[in-house]
Amino acid sequence: MPKIALFPGSFDPITIGHVDIVRRAAPLFDSIVIGLGSNSQKSSLFTVEQRLEWIREEFSDLKSVRVEEYQGLTVNFCKQIGASYIIRGLRSAPDFEYEKNIAQFNKAMEGVDTLFFMTEPALSPISSTIVRDIIRNQGDPSAFVPDSIKRYFKK
Amino acid sequence: MPKIALFPGSFDPITIGHVDIVRRAAPLFDSIVIGLGSNSQKSSLFTVEQRLEWIREEFSDLKSVRVEEYQGLTVNFCKQIGASYIIRGLRSAPDFEYEKNIAQFNKAMEGVDTLFFMTEPALSPISSTIVRDIIRNQGDPSAFVPDSIKRYFKK
Amino acid sequence: MPKIALFPGSFDPITIGHVDIVRRAAPLFDSIVIGLGSNSQKSSLFTVEQRLEWIREEFSDLKSVRVEEYQGLTVNFCKQIGASYIIRGLRSAPDFEYEKNIAQFNKAMEGVDTLFFMTEPALSPISSTIVRDIIRNQGDPSAFVPDSIKRYFKK
Amino acid sequence: MPKIALFPGSFDPITIGHVDIVRRAAPLFDSIVIGLGSNSQKSSLFTVEQRLEWIREEFSDLKSVRVEEYQGLTVNFCKQIGASYIIRGLRSAPDFEYEKNIAQFNKAMEGVDTLFFMTEPALSPISSTIVRDIIRNQGDPSAFVPDSIKRYFKK
Amino acid sequence: MPKIALFPGSFDPITIGHVDIVRRAAPLFDSIVIGLGSNSQKSSLFTVEQRLEWIREEFSDLKSVRVEEYQGLTVNFCKQIGASYIIRGLRSAPDFEYEKNIAQFNKAMEGVDTLFFMTEPALSPISSTIVRDIIRNQGDPSAFVPDSIKRYFKK
Amino acid sequence: MPKIALFPGSFDPITIGHVDIVRRAAPLFDSIVIGLGSNSQKSSLFTVEQRLEWIREEFSDLKSVRVEEYQGLTVNFCKQIGASYIIRGLRSAPDFEYEKNIAQFNKAMEGVDTLFFMTEPALSPISSTIVRDIIRNQGDPSAFVPDSIKRYFKK
Repeated sequence: MPKIALFPGSFDPITIGHVDIVRRAAPLFDSIVIGLGSNSQKSSLFTVEQRLEWIREEFSDLKSVRVEEYQGLTVNFCKQIGASYIIRGLRSAPDFEYEKNIAQFNKAMEGVDTLFFMTEPALSPISSTIVRDIIRNQGDPSAFVPDSIKRYFKK
Repeated sequence: MPKIALFPGSFDPITIGHVDIVRRAAPLFDSIVIGLGSNSQKSSLFTVEQRLEWIREEFSDLKSVRVEEYQGLTVNFCKQIGASYIIRGLRSAPDFEYEKNIAQFNKAMEGVDTLFFMTEPALSPISSTIVRDIIRNQGDPSAFVPDSIKRYFKK
Repeated sequence: MPKIALFPGSFDPITIGHVDIVRRAAPLFDSIVIGLGSNSQKSSLFTVEQRLEWIREEFSDLKSVRVEEYQGLTVNFCKQIGASYIIRGLRSAPDFEYEKNIAQFNKAMEGVDTLFFMTEPALSPISSTIVRDIIRNQGDPSAFVPDSIKRYFKK
Repeated sequence: MPKIALFPGSFDPITIGHVDIVRRAAPLFDSIVIGLGSNSQKSSLFTVEQRLEWIREEFSDLKSVRVEEYQGLTVNFCKQIGASYIIRGLRSAPDFEYEKNIAQFNKAMEGVDTLFFMTEPALSPISSTIVRDIIRNQGDPSAFVPDSIKRYFKK
Repeated sequence: MPKIALFPGSFDPITIGHVDIVRRAAPLFDSIVIGLGSNSQKSSLFTVEQRLEWIREEFSDLKSVRVEEYQGLTVNFCKQIGASYIIRGLRSAPDFEYEKNIAQFNKAMEGVDTLFFMTEPALSPISSTIVRDIIRNQGDPSAFVPDSIKRYFKK
Repeated sequence: MPKIALFPGSFDPITIGHVDIVRRAAPLFDSIVIGLGSNSQKSSLFTVEQRLEWIREEFSDLKSVRVEEYQGLTVNFCKQIGASYIIRGLRSAPDFEYEKNIAQFNKAMEGVDTLFFMTEPALSPISSTIVRDIIRNQGDPSAFVPDSIKRYFKK
């Protein structure tokens, strides 16, 4: 049975923090699906298409990584794609408390276990929220986003 | 290259919380070494030999899991046994803060990454410290320890 | 003077975590009022009537427990019903930080003291938010809600 | 059945923070036992006799409060004195994490439930540790200790 | 080069907690600018004009303190007014986690460093959120706000 | 009146994390005293003389910074050297909780206020404890200590 993991998020947009977690997890799995959860109730800065494209471009060198959009409960999407594991990064204690409940819920509901990686110290202040704030205020986000997005903002 | 992981601790004694983490991690690795760190400065309730025996007995059904004693820096022991990953359980936010620094240090020093699993909710109050307190006060630790130790205390 | 306590919340819907706290607190008080705070600014998944009915049904065996809707500051509702104590459950450190400020405020304003109970380990991942997420996504919430709600969803 | 609660601690020495918790809890119980846990492994600044005397003096006005020394597991002492509840104050998130595990353990082992009170904001920096530091360095602890101890240090 | 610091916030309304931080920071700087960040996306209880007036009135005795409205990234406003430091109060661990990321971001982007003061224990439960809740429910906020606002509510 | 600040610690040994805080604080004060608290109850890896020498060497370029040994309460040493401020770095939430109580105590006792700086993200896993662990196990601490100590270990 192939080892498949899901890396879920809204990736609005993907940051170098996200990229680092996926690349560290890649050697452990036969396949990693980056799941872009699109929630109709939550407004986003970038379109789903744009977010998917940036992710696809960033991981074009890694055959075992692909990106897919999903809706509804994350644990249901895991079942659909055959993922037995979820991958998450942890930056801080509040991250931990939030993730703990979700991980315990996913395990209790469907037996899907979650693997956590500690964010690199230098990447820990980075979040999509901060990147969106910079972009909304005409700042330069290039220190926090991967090359695919850097190119977009330099155009 | 085989995927080898270290699960380090002092296991004085091993609890059902530890056992759960190892069994959840086992499918991800070719080999898991439970590393019993014996620190001459820290006094223990049980001898190293006793602690090793309980662990060996508990995992006799899992071919990919073995136990070894080590001294010195955990990251050095990883290099010695060829482990690219460390496995740890997380119970609480203070656990998280403590583990974060160590994980970041191990990655910075030798490139050894740490994978974290969230403790099962029902197991989160369990720790070796509490088990030792019960035993020191002639209480019954059987709700918190694996069968190998239960048998020992029923003798 | 009878000992009266308030257990406030929005109960959208009530979970087995809430039920456990009320049942543990019941022996300490002559009367417990479950106060359903209905806030016109916050949208809810279930109507106030439905939420009240589920709570009433769940505690029909406990004469000292009743449910009432209220609006405005919780501490004002305490004065209105003669409650000298508020009851709350604590699941996690973020819960603690949030509750600490409110408890200190209620004591400073009106001398109403708050009693906290620790959530049972197995119930700590449960919240109304997670239950609503399951229901919105056509999942089965029956592991997290009391019998009165289970029956409703099996109809 | 009388409602009996235990307020355990080492009280080396008792502070105005401890006193506040006992006085707030008193109206809820028929009897409160302040349990001075004397642990032979832990060295203390004041003798058990001195610590007991200060507590006795402080609560001489409250008939329902008495002090007793105990050894071994707190939960065993509860059974011995017929206490169904333990009382504790919470000052901070680390306090919370520490107390959570102990409370869950006591409930799982013997069904003894713990009630938590939030420390008054102005009392939250106070601890026996800080009082001992002041005394060891010939400072004046009178802002942090009850009258019985103030009198002792003014002699 | 004069030492200029920014104290940013939305001050909806300013509380005695905010006032305490500014007065403690004043001796360290040649000039402190209280920056009222007005965010068009976030609705406020009081108008920008009213909030500015209360702040101006409160600090009329301190020549080195003035108030200004700003929009956009806080770090950009620092550059505009020549501030090399940001001042913030810390009440709790969640405050700390939130502020840490922002402070690290501001330092990485523009070299603006942040100085933190611990909130006085007695002021730690106070926040603009709680003050707004009281006012919305026709309560009396006078224990939590400075004289300029007290006078307004007594009119 | 000159603005004098104390940066207290045991510095066993000083790390690049400590050095960063002192250099960031230096522009705000006329004089900074690095106070090496030598506590006879606590054993240290390096002698007081060695620790003082490394600090002196590291800050030989900064005229306003000097190092002194002290014993007893930190707040008493502040009075002795005329310091109105204490400087501390904050790495994590547990740091915060620990420092909060001490800062509030120092302010309540002698009116000495504490200024906190957030540790740089890349420096946050560094502590004297980790450096001592490396040295005790014959590892290379040079990534975590200033030049004065690096030279010592290369000799």
